[in-house]
Amino acid sequence: MLTRYAVILAAGQGTRMKSKLYKVLHPVCGKAMVQHVVDQVLNLQIKDVVAVIGHGSEQVKAQLGNKVKYVNQAEQLGTAHAVIQAKDLLDNKEGVTLVVCGDTPLIKSETLEALFKHHDETSAKATILTAVTQNPSGYGRIVRNSHGQVEKIVEHKDATDEERLITEINTGTYCFDNMALFHALNQVSNENAQGEYYLPDVIEILKKQNDIVAAFQTEDFEETLGVNDRVALAEAEALMKKRINKFHMQNGVSIIDPENTYIEASVRIKEDTVIMPGSILSGDTVIDSDCVIGPHTEIKNCVVGKNTVIKQSIAHDSKIGSEVNIGPFAHIRPQSNIDDEVKIGNFVEIKKVSFGKGSKASHLSYIGDAEVGSDVNIGCGTITVNYDGKNKFLTKIGDGAFVGCNSNLIAPVTIGEGAYVAAGSTITEDVPGNALSIARARQVNKENYVEKLQQDKN
Amino acid sequence: MLTRYAVILAAGQGTRMKSKLYKVLHPVCGKAMVQHVVDQVLNLQIKDVVAVIGHGSEQVKAQLGNKVKYVNQAEQLGTAHAVIQAKDLLDNKEGVTLVVCGDTPLIKSETLEALFKHHDETSAKATILTAVTQNPSGYGRIVRNSHGQVEKIVEHKDATDEERLITEINTGTYCFDNMALFHALNQVSNENAQGEYYLPDVIEILKKQNDIVAAFQTEDFEETLGVNDRVALAEAEALMKKRINKFHMQNGVSIIDPENTYIEASVRIKEDTVIMPGSILSGDTVIDSDCVIGPHTEIKNCVVGKNTVIKQSIAHDSKIGSEVNIGPFAHIRPQSNIDDEVKIGNFVEIKKVSFGKGSKASHLSYIGDAEVGSDVNIGCGTITVNYDGKNKFLTKIGDGAFVGCNSNLIAPVTIGEGAYVAAGSTITEDVPGNALSIARARQVNKENYVEKLQQDKN
Amino acid sequence: MLTRYAVILAAGQGTRMKSKLYKVLHPVCGKAMVQHVVDQVLNLQIKDVVAVIGHGSEQVKAQLGNKVKYVNQAEQLGTAHAVIQAKDLLDNKEGVTLVVCGDTPLIKSETLEALFKHHDETSAKATILTAVTQNPSGYGRIVRNSHGQVEKIVEHKDATDEERLITEINTGTYCFDNMALFHALNQVSNENAQGEYYLPDVIEILKKQNDIVAAFQTEDFEETLGVNDRVALAEAEALMKKRINKFHMQNGVSIIDPENTYIEASVRIKEDTVIMPGSILSGDTVIDSDCVIGPHTEIKNCVVGKNTVIKQSIAHDSKIGSEVNIGPFAHIRPQSNIDDEVKIGNFVEIKKVSFGKGSKASHLSYIGDAEVGSDVNIGCGTITVNYDGKNKFLTKIGDGAFVGCNSNLIAPVTIGEGAYVAAGSTITEDVPGNALSIARARQVNKENYVEKLQQDKN
Repeated sequence: MLTRYAVILAAGQGTRMKSKLYKVLHPVCGKAMVQHVVDQVLNLQIKDVVAVIGHGSEQVKAQLGNKVKYVNQAEQLGTAHAVIQAKDLLDNKEGVTLVVCGDTPLIKSETLEALFKHHDETSAKATILTAVTQNPSGYGRIVRNSHGQVEKIVEHKDATDEERLITEINTGTYCFDNMALFHALNQVSNENAQGEYYLPDVIEILKKQNDIVAAFQTEDFEETLGVNDRVALAEAEALMKKRINKFHMQNGVSIIDPENTYIEASVRIKEDTVIMPGSILSGDTVIDSDCVIGPHTEIKNCVVGKNTVIKQSIAHDSKIGSEVNIGPFAHIRPQSNIDDEVKIGNFVEIKKVSFGKGSKASHLSYIGDAEVGSDVNIGCGTITVNYDGKNKFLTKIGDGAFVGCNSNLIAPVTIGEGAYVAAGSTITEDVPGNALSIARARQVNKENYVEKLQQDKN
Repeated sequence: MLTRYAVILAAGQGTRMKSKLYKVLHPVCGKAMVQHVVDQVLNLQIKDVVAVIGHGSEQVKAQLGNKVKYVNQAEQLGTAHAVIQAKDLLDNKEGVTLVVCGDTPLIKSETLEALFKHHDETSAKATILTAVTQNPSGYGRIVRNSHGQVEKIVEHKDATDEERLITEINTGTYCFDNMALFHALNQVSNENAQGEYYLPDVIEILKKQNDIVAAFQTEDFEETLGVNDRVALAEAEALMKKRINKFHMQNGVSIIDPENTYIEASVRIKEDTVIMPGSILSGDTVIDSDCVIGPHTEIKNCVVGKNTVIKQSIAHDSKIGSEVNIGPFAHIRPQSNIDDEVKIGNFVEIKKVSFGKGSKASHLSYIGDAEVGSDVNIGCGTITVNYDGKNKFLTKIGDGAFVGCNSNLIAPVTIGEGAYVAAGSTITEDVPGNALSIARARQVNKENYVEKLQQDKN
Repeated sequence: MLTRYAVILAAGQGTRMKSKLYKVLHPVCGKAMVQHVVDQVLNLQIKDVVAVIGHGSEQVKAQLGNKVKYVNQAEQLGTAHAVIQAKDLLDNKEGVTLVVCGDTPLIKSETLEALFKHHDETSAKATILTAVTQNPSGYGRIVRNSHGQVEKIVEHKDATDEERLITEINTGTYCFDNMALFHALNQVSNENAQGEYYLPDVIEILKKQNDIVAAFQTEDFEETLGVNDRVALAEAEALMKKRINKFHMQNGVSIIDPENTYIEASVRIKEDTVIMPGSILSGDTVIDSDCVIGPHTEIKNCVVGKNTVIKQSIAHDSKIGSEVNIGPFAHIRPQSNIDDEVKIGNFVEIKKVSFGKGSKASHLSYIGDAEVGSDVNIGCGTITVNYDGKNKFLTKIGDGAFVGCNSNLIAPVTIGEGAYVAAGSTITEDVPGNALSIARARQVNKENYVEKLQQDKN
């Protein structure tokens, strides 16, 4: 195999995005557009991947890291000018160079591999990735001769009426013989209306030299979508969502409404799990088999065991076991570790808590900074008072303890194994194992008092 | 009318579903696929409905019950082999036999009735249900002669290039003269690549006998969708959703976004009710007129009166009156009975409670196992302490009582009519009617104490 | 420019809506259909806008107010009959009269302006607004002669097979020379199957007089959609939603899923704000730049500052500052005024509260009728006891105060600046600045009591 190089065009500002955020950094399904492109390119055994950066170059470097090399395009003077910036890194090297735009987040490595292959097979100096669309308006058209060979690319504005009927378009992705590319780039001129150096001119130059120019037509036009504004960004999001959800469904995940289910590419889900509508799964999330997730559940960076149900809830950066029942309306905040068979019910917030097997917090509680044993019952309205305005303190609750409703556990405090806290108690001192702890006032009934009370109010 | 029979093919495993659940049991809009088919078939005055079962046969029987007869197909050797299993029940009977697949959940009884009718009118021995699609790839094509008469079904893989241009396809649903069907089935061979017995071969056999074979073309290709993987399952779900929502809209229900509203076929809704986006209505749910349901509300097995509003909430297995206001973020758990003009506000959970007319629980409460009278005001943060770790106990609150905020009512306990519980009280004993009950500690202000406290912490 | 008039047909009952609500009052994206039409018409420098009303006339007047004039159509005898009702207001006036239906909520003023312009340029006595559709069934077709001139409108039921192939249809919107219109209306007869007076007959009458009849074809068929049932109402909603969301995306707002985001036309949003799926923004809502709204957030009539996050929450009729963090599962009720850098966390309800800069209510609280200073920490489970069953009272919390968890603040009450309320206290009297206030019972631990307790229960 010839040595492969890749140049990723990632320098444009993207003024039509109307954004402080640099265009190629806008996310699609949670990942920056240019990162999508780079991830696909990195699958292809490429020696050097060179990103041409300009606007927001520091953020782009921070995004892409050290798997790619960078060259700077201080002024954006056109796509050919962009590729020329890679000259110091790539000139005079034998091999094939892929040129791809950083704003085409849907491009797949399989398609790029097929492009390389076609380039090899045709002995071309350049191979254009093309696609067919019923609405080619605005795109450069691929003009072929009667033998089907590429004659030229004609830009929409320069096309004749006849040429405008052509539905095969230039996607803006190419393979080039590396030596031929840089040789031709030297000859590209900016004598045109915009005063820019255009990469398609390289095709014309090669044709004039009688070099072979090939075209590889991909079947999926949508894959080549370039994003220039947020309308296209939303289209790319919808297409990527469809692709990801199809992948999961083919793997045995039931997605009730794939149009209304948002899963990032990084998420893994096992078979016979059901994802209900309105759910959002992101980050390093792994969901085991036979779960029911949603409706309207958001999970980020969580590991979830088998046969767990998470309804109308939110969970971030936590570990959740098997046979767990969460929600509706629960909030699992980061650093929680929920063991098997736990129940976290409605209006319960958990933060930085370990929850032992079979324990329950079924209603209206806040458990933060706590170690909860197994088979603990945390009554409705229980609050771990973990903050005194300055510091956070730990609450420990032993196995089998029963915390009565509306209790305040003022941390640092320990409730011993099997202890019982009476409802309505504010616990400030440790409770020994198997002790009953109570802290409440005696009830007084004042008979026929309500009438008097009403009179007072009037 | 000729005696009618039906054979429902429901024996395949459905390996492409990648599921422990047997294929035809996968739900579409909350109902197993094969149940959809059977329900449509049972509308058609059919003498015997025979389900051919195999994989997961016990679960399929449990699903379909005793309205259909069952025959077992131990090995799955093709569609003709499946129908032959019904021989003991159907052979040598005069009549017409419908053969339909259990994985076509969208098929309608109106279409099947029209198929029967066409079969009668044409005096055919077999009538194929066909449909037209612009993407016929993979389907068997209907080859007609120059008079429009059916010549044969040609499978995609056996079709000539010319035949592949045919857009009329075999949906896999048929009517047969019952005697002719079983006679022909005896002649079907498995001498083909897969070694299976195919039902379309019956058509060829009948044609060879010079029997009339007709085709009834349904207008709606989508109705004939067969589900083989979860991608198709989601498509079937989307189409069924569309059909159900259209039905409700035509009946005078406003559905703001029918793409994002999930209603099972069993649900009934009266006119001028508005369903907001993200709502999920299922089971035996009946909603009266002039309600507003949603956004993001889930209701299962509930009866809801007129002019009731349920926003961003969940209600299961309960009865909800008229002019009731629920939500946002409320949870009505099973066996609740909510009378007219009740308000259940945000972060309130209700379980197994009767709520009298005009009563209110507006915020942050858990009311479980309780009988609440009329015109009761339950203050914010009220908790019925219904569980002592072993048993559940009942709370009774009389008409016109006022329960102060953050009260604990430790069941079993009764708050009398017109009684007043002071905020922050833990009530362990019954409160007589019109009494004021109070259980709280005296407030002590320690002046300039905070500075000292801060010093202690540093 | 000729004097312009407009007649808006808004008298039909809309029986296919199956609604108590009068047809043109049904909302699309939160605004009555006829109001959409009137708002577009009022952009066009029109002297008199006349609404022809009938069913529900009082509600229509209440909706449209005094920017339009009204005439009553007591009986609905057809579209020509409807226009005739405007005779007293419009007859014998020189000028051009636009006739448009009140059930076409998607029509744009740009299109109507182009229709007026085309009418002027062609010196026509009548100009029909037409559109092209691939499914023209049911619509009146535009029959043109070989020179492209309008010959007639032919209704679907009266059309020949050849005429039915015409894809250019009558949208039901017209411009007329005002004098010619009323002159021709006198000649319209009701001798037809329905016994109604039809406006398209005016076209025929003008043609017979050899007047010029023109047609202006709009590019966007969808814009001319007329709503006759709730299926079409939902279609109009979807199209309007698409239009509104596209507008915001082009302005630099990221909408992750425009299919699942519901924004009324009145809402304004600045660039680099991200709207997550399932969000519903309505009324006089203004959202500044760099916010994250949603998922599943509902905001109505709120002003929101820069860089604020509102997740899975509801906010109505309130002012929310910059750098504010709300949710998930928070509820901001009307008349709240939340200053910058405030945090309102999960399961918190705010009502008629001012919240000073940097204050926090992070969990499970109800704060109603209160003035909260800056840098206040409101502990989990805090409740302002603002209601005694008869009246509502005010709670004041001074700057820098710390309210411990599960406190009840029984209004009217003031917590002084820098004061500290101990967790679990019920505060009935004012707390001086910098004081510690505590109201709770002493904790008693009864060792080994649980075993005894268990025995008692058995």
